[in-house]
Amino acid sequence: MTLPTFTEHALPYCVFSRGADSPRVGAGLGTYIVDLHRTFGDPIFAGPSLNAFMSRGPRAWQRTRERLLGSVRGGQIGELVPIAEATLHLPFEVADFADFYSSLEHATNAARVLRPGDPQVHRNWREMPVGYHGRAGTVVVSGTPVQRPRGQLAPGHARPELAPTRRLDFEAEIGFVVGVGSALGQPVPAGAFTQHVFGVVLLIDWSARDIQAFESRPLGPFLGKSFATTISPWVIPLAALEQSRVPPPAQDPEPLSYLRESLPWGLDIDLALSINGQVISRPRFATMYWTGAQQLAHLTVNGAALRTGDLYGSGTVSSFRHDEMGSLLEMTTGGRDPITLPDGQTRSYLADGDTVTLSGSAPGPDGSRIEFGSASGQVTGPAG
Amino acid sequence: MTLPTFTEHALPYCVFSRGADSPRVGAGLGTYIVDLHRTFGDPIFAGPSLNAFMSRGPRAWQRTRERLLGSVRGGQIGELVPIAEATLHLPFEVADFADFYSSLEHATNAARVLRPGDPQVHRNWREMPVGYHGRAGTVVVSGTPVQRPRGQLAPGHARPELAPTRRLDFEAEIGFVVGVGSALGQPVPAGAFTQHVFGVVLLIDWSARDIQAFESRPLGPFLGKSFATTISPWVIPLAALEQSRVPPPAQDPEPLSYLRESLPWGLDIDLALSINGQVISRPRFATMYWTGAQQLAHLTVNGAALRTGDLYGSGTVSSFRHDEMGSLLEMTTGGRDPITLPDGQTRSYLADGDTVTLSGSAPGPDGSRIEFGSASGQVTGPAG
Repeated sequence: MTLPTFTEHALPYCVFSRGADSPRVGAGLGTYIVDLHRTFGDPIFAGPSLNAFMSRGPRAWQRTRERLLGSVRGGQIGELVPIAEATLHLPFEVADFADFYSSLEHATNAARVLRPGDPQVHRNWREMPVGYHGRAGTVVVSGTPVQRPRGQLAPGHARPELAPTRRLDFEAEIGFVVGVGSALGQPVPAGAFTQHVFGVVLLIDWSARDIQAFESRPLGPFLGKSFATTISPWVIPLAALEQSRVPPPAQDPEPLSYLRESLPWGLDIDLALSINGQVISRPRFATMYWTGAQQLAHLTVNGAALRTGDLYGSGTVSSFRHDEMGSLLEMTTGGRDPITLPDGQTRSYLADGDTVTLSGSAPGPDGSRIEFGSASGQVTGPAG
Repeated sequence: MTLPTFTEHALPYCVFSRGADSPRVGAGLGTYIVDLHRTFGDPIFAGPSLNAFMSRGPRAWQRTRERLLGSVRGGQIGELVPIAEATLHLPFEVADFADFYSSLEHATNAARVLRPGDPQVHRNWREMPVGYHGRAGTVVVSGTPVQRPRGQLAPGHARPELAPTRRLDFEAEIGFVVGVGSALGQPVPAGAFTQHVFGVVLLIDWSARDIQAFESRPLGPFLGKSFATTISPWVIPLAALEQSRVPPPAQDPEPLSYLRESLPWGLDIDLALSINGQVISRPRFATMYWTGAQQLAHLTVNGAALRTGDLYGSGTVSSFRHDEMGSLLEMTTGGRDPITLPDGQTRSYLADGDTVTLSGSAPGPDGSRIEFGSASGQVTGPAG
């Protein structure tokens, strides 16, 4: 796999270890990791997760970033570990995981596949970022194998059988990572996005379409999604994405006031999806209908509290163009029209042994690019 | 509120504090709490949650229970704190929260209210314990006020408005608490229930029916449920429920093999629901179609890992009899037929100021009863 190269404008955070060292917090620079504990001496960087640092809040995040940038520019970084020699760990302890569904193109494509007689996006879709809760305990870091799950499959009207999924899919998403919690009963306005959200990760929402199809009525996805969600080891701080901000597509009808943003948080992130190293799609995050700030406002409008480590997914990033779609469900029209990979192989859904990789980048200052690294997982056969 | 009285057969666990003392682990006995750290000297009981103790596993749970019982019978309990003088805290850190839907009567009643033209339980219902993930971060201990949530309400075909829910409801449930985790990719068989599940709590699944109605298509409940879930402060160990075990109702069709139990874990728990101290219903847990062991097997059949502190709700315990139903949705036929409380007041849904209390008990040895204590919450007005 190609290793990322991080400019001084990116400085994404990670949790890494080398050899017998215990995992600790680092920042990506070039093809190296800055050991933040050894560089700054702050014990908050000595632990195996970003949670304690993230909970300090935006002024501490900014001070650390400025100090790091100063050290980099002053040539004062003494402790650099090559990324190639490091093990990258899950960068934070996931508190709650919620997942949205905020690409109009994805929702429309999915409706066409799943409800061909009535391919309408539901009435609530344009009024709110529709979402649901997923399983926090099965969020794994890039590189973790993804075992093909078993579940109840019931094609047609037969009784179900317990079998390995035959429709293993992925969804290309961005994940938002909450640093600062909120009090129960206190909605967080969209304008407080940067007071709570620390940064973003790449996120692969693995999906077993046949398990999901049979189980989802009336309570939504459950085991069809809960077996694994892969995130990138790098958390890109929001501060690195100022130049990536763009207005989202026009929202019609105008959203209710709690969902309005004065300075919208659309993000011009270019994603690339590959199977076995062959790029199959380049979804564009700038097309997302609802922004991360709107999702945060919606998630808390009922008074639900946030905690450090909460993660919420954007929903599949997709398009009406084949080469920008974010899932095989869409690219293959529910498995009916297999895609052909550059090497000539075809896929309706994923095969055992397939490696799916999601990578991303966004505009940075002075024409630079903010690299996100990648999130990747190889499909293994079902449990024996 | 009436305080519980725990026999030596119950010995439920809690996390308590008194005065300026820091929260620590205790066990209920009579109308007292045994301070387990001071009694046994084991530092695992000195912390503010049961998680570390629960992670030790069933042999450690049994040894502690036997030692405690021995001390009780030998009159060697030195440190007793009156329950009336203690503050009871959330007894464990909730990892993931899932919620099932496993009463056939509830599912049938709900279908009648929500889909009057087609009041059928979906085809998947008799094949699996249908469930979804909820918000772990808003699971609160009994006594925590429940603020009436705001959300998008869209009666009829009008555009939604953001307003406090007008249909605030509760669901009476039992929650199962996972002590011992499992590895990713390794399903936990129904027969391993007692190797993983530590005990049970009473659980109130607060539900805003109007928010839920508009948001739920196609991904299921989200903000209509995520604002609060109340659990009892007492975790009743499974070991206290051996005499409470009963076969569940006959399951037709016969479930797939991973859902079969050789010794089923139906539980003869009698619940009582009250509003403002007036009992309105007595749901019977013995009527539940799917057992906690079957729910555990289903939750993990796709390889999803368990973690210490995972909590899963049974789903609403209900009945076709009015005086055994588990939610106002059912008792009032979706708000159309208000109930009259013993004091003459009527309710379609909950009013601000209402206190909902769920209590429970089950058969113990020698004709005794295992008391569960109670889970309770008072509804407060929406955020100002």
